[in-house]
Amino acid sequence: MRLSIGEIALLCKGELDGDSQIFIEGVNPPSLAGQSDLCYIEKTEDLALLGGRKVGCVILNEKDRKGDKFNFPVIWVKNPKLAFASVLREIDREKLSAFNPGISPHAFVSPKAKIAASAHIGPFCFIGEDAEIGENSILVSGVYIGNGSKIGNNCLLYSNVSVREGCLIGNFCILHCGCVIGSDGYGYAQSEKGHIKIAQIGGVKIGDNVEIGANTCIDRATMGFTEIGDGCKIDNLVHIAHNVKTGRNCLIIAQAGIAGSSKIGNNVIIAGQAGISDHVEIGDNSIIMAKTGVMGKVKPGSILFGYLGRPRGEYMRIEALLSKLPEFFNFYKKAKKKLDSDEKNAG
Amino acid sequence: MRLSIGEIALLCKGELDGDSQIFIEGVNPPSLAGQSDLCYIEKTEDLALLGGRKVGCVILNEKDRKGDKFNFPVIWVKNPKLAFASVLREIDREKLSAFNPGISPHAFVSPKAKIAASAHIGPFCFIGEDAEIGENSILVSGVYIGNGSKIGNNCLLYSNVSVREGCLIGNFCILHCGCVIGSDGYGYAQSEKGHIKIAQIGGVKIGDNVEIGANTCIDRATMGFTEIGDGCKIDNLVHIAHNVKTGRNCLIIAQAGIAGSSKIGNNVIIAGQAGISDHVEIGDNSIIMAKTGVMGKVKPGSILFGYLGRPRGEYMRIEALLSKLPEFFNFYKKAKKKLDSDEKNAG
Amino acid sequence: MRLSIGEIALLCKGELDGDSQIFIEGVNPPSLAGQSDLCYIEKTEDLALLGGRKVGCVILNEKDRKGDKFNFPVIWVKNPKLAFASVLREIDREKLSAFNPGISPHAFVSPKAKIAASAHIGPFCFIGEDAEIGENSILVSGVYIGNGSKIGNNCLLYSNVSVREGCLIGNFCILHCGCVIGSDGYGYAQSEKGHIKIAQIGGVKIGDNVEIGANTCIDRATMGFTEIGDGCKIDNLVHIAHNVKTGRNCLIIAQAGIAGSSKIGNNVIIAGQAGISDHVEIGDNSIIMAKTGVMGKVKPGSILFGYLGRPRGEYMRIEALLSKLPEFFNFYKKAKKKLDSDEKNAG
Repeated sequence: MRLSIGEIALLCKGELDGDSQIFIEGVNPPSLAGQSDLCYIEKTEDLALLGGRKVGCVILNEKDRKGDKFNFPVIWVKNPKLAFASVLREIDREKLSAFNPGISPHAFVSPKAKIAASAHIGPFCFIGEDAEIGENSILVSGVYIGNGSKIGNNCLLYSNVSVREGCLIGNFCILHCGCVIGSDGYGYAQSEKGHIKIAQIGGVKIGDNVEIGANTCIDRATMGFTEIGDGCKIDNLVHIAHNVKTGRNCLIIAQAGIAGSSKIGNNVIIAGQAGISDHVEIGDNSIIMAKTGVMGKVKPGSILFGYLGRPRGEYMRIEALLSKLPEFFNFYKKAKKKLDSDEKNAG
Repeated sequence: MRLSIGEIALLCKGELDGDSQIFIEGVNPPSLAGQSDLCYIEKTEDLALLGGRKVGCVILNEKDRKGDKFNFPVIWVKNPKLAFASVLREIDREKLSAFNPGISPHAFVSPKAKIAASAHIGPFCFIGEDAEIGENSILVSGVYIGNGSKIGNNCLLYSNVSVREGCLIGNFCILHCGCVIGSDGYGYAQSEKGHIKIAQIGGVKIGDNVEIGANTCIDRATMGFTEIGDGCKIDNLVHIAHNVKTGRNCLIIAQAGIAGSSKIGNNVIIAGQAGISDHVEIGDNSIIMAKTGVMGKVKPGSILFGYLGRPRGEYMRIEALLSKLPEFFNFYKKAKKKLDSDEKNAG
Repeated sequence: MRLSIGEIALLCKGELDGDSQIFIEGVNPPSLAGQSDLCYIEKTEDLALLGGRKVGCVILNEKDRKGDKFNFPVIWVKNPKLAFASVLREIDREKLSAFNPGISPHAFVSPKAKIAASAHIGPFCFIGEDAEIGENSILVSGVYIGNGSKIGNNCLLYSNVSVREGCLIGNFCILHCGCVIGSDGYGYAQSEKGHIKIAQIGGVKIGDNVEIGANTCIDRATMGFTEIGDGCKIDNLVHIAHNVKTGRNCLIIAQAGIAGSSKIGNNVIIAGQAGISDHVEIGDNSIIMAKTGVMGKVKPGSILFGYLGRPRGEYMRIEALLSKLPEFFNFYKKAKKKLDSDEKNAG
């Protein structure tokens, strides 16, 4: 990377204290930042992390601007983390410029597919009949798009992603390597001959600005659609079963699983390795903590924790009391003996 | 889709009350079914889900046939869910007709492989030496079949599946996107130089009518075979370690894991995120509930639940009593004080 | 396979009691070994597993050599498991000889990539700009190597592996089917418009002799590197988040997850389905047992178990006492009544 401090201040929509012509050559956390690195600091007290070192440039919170003098250029902004994110995005963007518009001669594209002129279809991609790829979307390599599936504009699909037939992906979505959209839901009818597969003829509908982690799987609906709302961010190795519907802006962390037909509200956080049963409803703004199991309806704004999810405070109290069980038990043995002998004497 | 009610009644082996020439254009659950949709109802009381709407056609249980008049055509059958499944299967079948027999010019097929004339080998598939693909089997795209592996008849392997060398897949199997059959078992010998890999020279043997979920991994045996019995249905992101053997018709749900050399009986259900230790035996017809850990032998017909799997009833009782721990603790503090003072007085 | 007992004794660095010209045609565990099979026995008492059968050859521990006569050839060694591993490795090696040096005409290789002359690049592999593949390394099929990534010497990358841009893999590494190295770390800044992606511009650095399981995901760092130390062995479906650092020779078993920025020491074992929170430190030689959750710092040499990891002994005691909760509860109801009535009488 090579950006001037002036350009960075513009990206950040910040106010610069320093020479706009100085060039920055890297980014780093405050504790590692060197002479030509940019870093950001959220709280003024964290300035100590710089240890008085001369660094390239620091993004600071404008509410901490109290006339202090620094031995490095400063960009004052409203939200340092967001401002830094806009610089990282700019650096990252260079990477994508390598993916020129066009279809690789090593790709397989059905003559009935519609590929936007600005889209990039990399080697070993398969685009089925009636599939559509929107403007500026990039399919890196080995991506499979089944018949009739539609990928919106400005999407980025990394290597070895599979989107099976009849699935709809919105705009500005990122699908990480190896994720699978539209695999069959897990449904069987019981018969004397064993489990009879129920064909899953629905699809998956994914909103705008959704990110889906590496090797995550989202199953197609039996009928209708499994739906992921706008702005949801899904981590790696997550399982989302058929007919699940999530609201907007949910965060679903690595290795979590959501069983069939459950409905997740808006702004819900489901942390790592949590498991949600089938046909459950989780209200808006709830937090399901890591490794928590959820078997019933969850009210909006709940914070659940524990093997069988309980309100967080209740669970933490129980967990603390478990440490006292050996003490309880010693008391119990003694007290029970006494109670029994008292009863005998009384009887 | 476009099927007449008469054709549907034939598919269902049911008896039709209505005009066989009416055409159905979609399928839906009862609550969503419209004027030209087919739906099914398992229990008569669920008829209310239709809310008196005019729908295309309803599959009902023949034991509920009591002379009622309906404002829609009815197909009477023994098992509505199974009957509906047969209609879904018919609709789904159209999808497969797109996969014509033949080998894509974009595939790589060893001259020493044997491919049945009716098989479909899609673009970017790799078929190794001495590998065999049976009649009517479909390899969609980007499927890897290692040297000497054999895929039976009427199998369906979706995009980016990997079947490594020396593995045997039966007939009528479905392997979903990204699943991996025959990765090395996890085995090391300890030495002063660190962990020394024990080469895994066995394979994986999968029976007939087995379905394997997206991104699920089944490791090859150290020696001999890891075995999955006929009719097993395995969901997404499941891990099955080396030398595991499962019986027939097991259901293994998403994100469950089975460690090395464990033996699973027939008709066992292992629910989502459950974990089975190595060298464990699970008896026929057992149910291991979601998130349950199993560390020892399980008798046939058991239902286990809990972090360290216990009989379900016992576990639910413990879980309920955990809520009382704070109450216990208050009593304990009081009673202990009294017991101690009584003892002092007595002493 | 076809090796003479003499060749096997050489491979094992062992001493042979028997005719070096006899040929061995298979390997098996002692209970299954036949007339021309090799097997190994760790403890002399396990000789009973042979049941007096005539087997091809047995590897025994030289410290058990007490002049007994056996009806089969014996190779005496210091460490039978390690010796057997060296024979398995020899058998397994044949498999790799099929991968000749050279680049498949079905691969896509950037003209700016550097491929060692002895490397094998299979069909449908993608090698980006400035990527490097070392001597004797094998990329089986459908492997994606992003721009600027470097694969060391003697590595083996199975089908459908993805290594994204800017990642460094050491020597003698094995990457199993479908694993993903360098997917974006999961990082967002909150804004009024929802979650804003923080571009992840770091990479992943993997040491020598590392094995990474099928469909495992290791995310790239936000800045700097996610690091996996020399000799680590990672099983299937593991999630390792951005900026995690592991020491040397760790074992990380299937479906375990490590959240962002956590630091794992040397020789740590993290068992199946365990979950490590973010920004946690785990000391050298610790063992995190299966399904255990870790939320705080772990001292070197700890053994943790339980939903919220506790020292193993403590956890096992609590788990045992949970079985007594119903008994506690009966006592409590009785004793509380008595305490209450005593208090009333006293008051």
